[in-house]
Amino acid sequence: MLQSELFTKTRKEGPKDEVARNAQLLIRAGYIHKEMAGVYSFLPLGLRVLNKIVGIIREEMNAIGGQELFLTALQDPAVWKTSGRWSEQVVDNWFKTEIKTGGAAGLGFTHEEPIVRLMKDHIHSYRDLPKFIYQFQTKFRNEERAKSGILRTREFLMKDLYSFARDEKEHAKLYEKVKSAYSRIFNRAGVGRRTFLTFASGGSFSKYSHEFQTVCDAGEDTIYLDEKKEIAVNKEVLAPEVLKELGLKREGLTEKKAVEVGNIFSQGIRFSEPLGLTFKDEAGTEKPVVMGAYGIGPGRLLGAIVELLADKAGLVWPASVAPFQVHLVSLASENGETKSSADALYKKLLDKGVETLYDDRDLRVGEKFADDDLLGLPIRLVVSDKTAKAGKIEFKRRIEDKSELLSEAEVMERVVSL
Amino acid sequence: MLQSELFTKTRKEGPKDEVARNAQLLIRAGYIHKEMAGVYSFLPLGLRVLNKIVGIIREEMNAIGGQELFLTALQDPAVWKTSGRWSEQVVDNWFKTEIKTGGAAGLGFTHEEPIVRLMKDHIHSYRDLPKFIYQFQTKFRNEERAKSGILRTREFLMKDLYSFARDEKEHAKLYEKVKSAYSRIFNRAGVGRRTFLTFASGGSFSKYSHEFQTVCDAGEDTIYLDEKKEIAVNKEVLAPEVLKELGLKREGLTEKKAVEVGNIFSQGIRFSEPLGLTFKDEAGTEKPVVMGAYGIGPGRLLGAIVELLADKAGLVWPASVAPFQVHLVSLASENGETKSSADALYKKLLDKGVETLYDDRDLRVGEKFADDDLLGLPIRLVVSDKTAKAGKIEFKRRIEDKSELLSEAEVMERVVSL
Repeated sequence: MLQSELFTKTRKEGPKDEVARNAQLLIRAGYIHKEMAGVYSFLPLGLRVLNKIVGIIREEMNAIGGQELFLTALQDPAVWKTSGRWSEQVVDNWFKTEIKTGGAAGLGFTHEEPIVRLMKDHIHSYRDLPKFIYQFQTKFRNEERAKSGILRTREFLMKDLYSFARDEKEHAKLYEKVKSAYSRIFNRAGVGRRTFLTFASGGSFSKYSHEFQTVCDAGEDTIYLDEKKEIAVNKEVLAPEVLKELGLKREGLTEKKAVEVGNIFSQGIRFSEPLGLTFKDEAGTEKPVVMGAYGIGPGRLLGAIVELLADKAGLVWPASVAPFQVHLVSLASENGETKSSADALYKKLLDKGVETLYDDRDLRVGEKFADDDLLGLPIRLVVSDKTAKAGKIEFKRRIEDKSELLSEAEVMERVVSL
Repeated sequence: MLQSELFTKTRKEGPKDEVARNAQLLIRAGYIHKEMAGVYSFLPLGLRVLNKIVGIIREEMNAIGGQELFLTALQDPAVWKTSGRWSEQVVDNWFKTEIKTGGAAGLGFTHEEPIVRLMKDHIHSYRDLPKFIYQFQTKFRNEERAKSGILRTREFLMKDLYSFARDEKEHAKLYEKVKSAYSRIFNRAGVGRRTFLTFASGGSFSKYSHEFQTVCDAGEDTIYLDEKKEIAVNKEVLAPEVLKELGLKREGLTEKKAVEVGNIFSQGIRFSEPLGLTFKDEAGTEKPVVMGAYGIGPGRLLGAIVELLADKAGLVWPASVAPFQVHLVSLASENGETKSSADALYKKLLDKGVETLYDDRDLRVGEKFADDDLLGLPIRLVVSDKTAKAGKIEFKRRIEDKSELLSEAEVMERVVSL
């Protein structure tokens, strides 16, 4: 894409009303826009990153046999009353609204109730199980505090996966499949090295749930991490008997701030029983379906990537989620040979399918390089009078300080294999 | 995909609480699920169709230079008060909700106000114009009546495009570009032949707006169509002086029911002026930006396709939006040679990139064919003991009654070029 046509502009200063570093940087770089406290729109560059993250998650959900659907935001009170979760004494972060023709609707903060009701039409027999069903849908949560930028918002995209199994044994297998898929997702998104499986509190149906916690200072959670074993314990369950059970020693754990980028829960029959989601087993006996729920917020994950990888100069994107792989910066002063060779290189990159943002703007080199650092694309290619004269291109990775003069063939080899 | 794994089941009978044919068929076929009146979830097959439609629209929006973003559903009252549209006397279909920490939020029924406020950060000079900005976002409308299935719902996906121009002349060019893009979209989605550019009422800034109306009995709109000239007039502006201006004769027009699948509006400075979206022209004069707004509801378009093309036996999808191109139906009685050749054909289809739903279920032929008709995939391939013995495959198009026995090579040639 031509940067001269991209409608978003960068800013030198971050907005005064933002304390979170992720929001500061993403707003300065034109990736997001704040609509209200805790409510952010995604601008073209931000949406491209979000879609890359969604794409990775979707691939991994499909790989374990997930079937994608798209539930609604508006929620029917009836089904939530049956489960006991319509009450604001039970769920304190509902957004509710009135239907003009009478009655109320909620805005989904999660989707267990509607998906269980829906599955009643489709699950009847043991032959219909097991199943993985997932979606990407906006969730609405009426949060008291919304100060962590896009890490905690009132409206956010969520991938929620639900598993439906015949019994606890089958459920345990599904649960392990998701655990592995989640590790692959966080690895692919570039935060795997600092994301740890974390034991957190369970519920009526399991001793623990599991969180995937990305260690960074902006995190709202506190975890106790065993760096060698690469597992952690959420502060909420830190107790001698838990550590003993998990084979951890308190002195081997370091307290860390972390962002919960994913969570996986065993729900047992918490929802299937009150809502009547049952199946007939091989002997013809009616049994409640055993469920699990598994969430990842792609927007929060995007924010965690920023918090983990950004540096003083701006954003830093792993190639897998970068809005463009290459930032081609032309320093050609006018139309002339240098400009032509930059244009030709842009065309070649596009022909090879390399996602390229081409800074063809008429700005000073300092401004261009400052924008390049701020935007955080993995590779910067510079074409200037000097490089053109030498028949070379300046190649620099965002995460390195040094640049190199390379031939076009060398550049192509490096960027095509990204 | 293996049909035995698809979680949705078809139904013989439509739901009793649905009057609309589109919802009846889509629910029977397991494409959608009704959550509440006017609120429908998309199940895997329905979501695949919806995503195909979205894909077509996105390609055409990008082709005219559209930049995609993703605004929020929650709306800040401040910006709507400035434009005068927060009041329920002015806009009678708001859904509103309360923010826990104080104040209210609306659920976006459209997005002019937030996009204009957003663009104020990015448009300053004539050099920043013109621009096309679009999104796919859920809209919420508190409709009095919701009886047309997915043709009119309280929550629906919408593609909304906004154009920003320096003056009326530039705006007119953008408007024509969108008009052409819309024609391409409806052609590609398979309803072009019965979708007509329709003159409807304008507003303060233009005499007319344009609608794209798909003629079908389920439509809520009444239009007067000149079949030869392929243009129509909405009932709301049918008057002698309008006909004269458009060069139409009343006796040449036929009254038709139609579904408004798209609309395009000139908005002039209706929003840019009160909200202060201005730019400096080449002489340094501050001027309000001239806007247009252009909508297509992918879900409504999906419903219109159903209304227009479905027959007594079920859904009928154009190849461009079908959830799968091919329905491979195995009539193999057991594991054996016929089953193996059906499996092998499935694998070959997947290898060639042909989207295939493989009915590998152990059901009677009548049930399988009834499901095939109901699901409406463009091509049915049948592998049975008989066809396997003859070394052939039975090929049938959903829109034709006759079937043919073809060789595998012939089948491949036909399906790969779909």
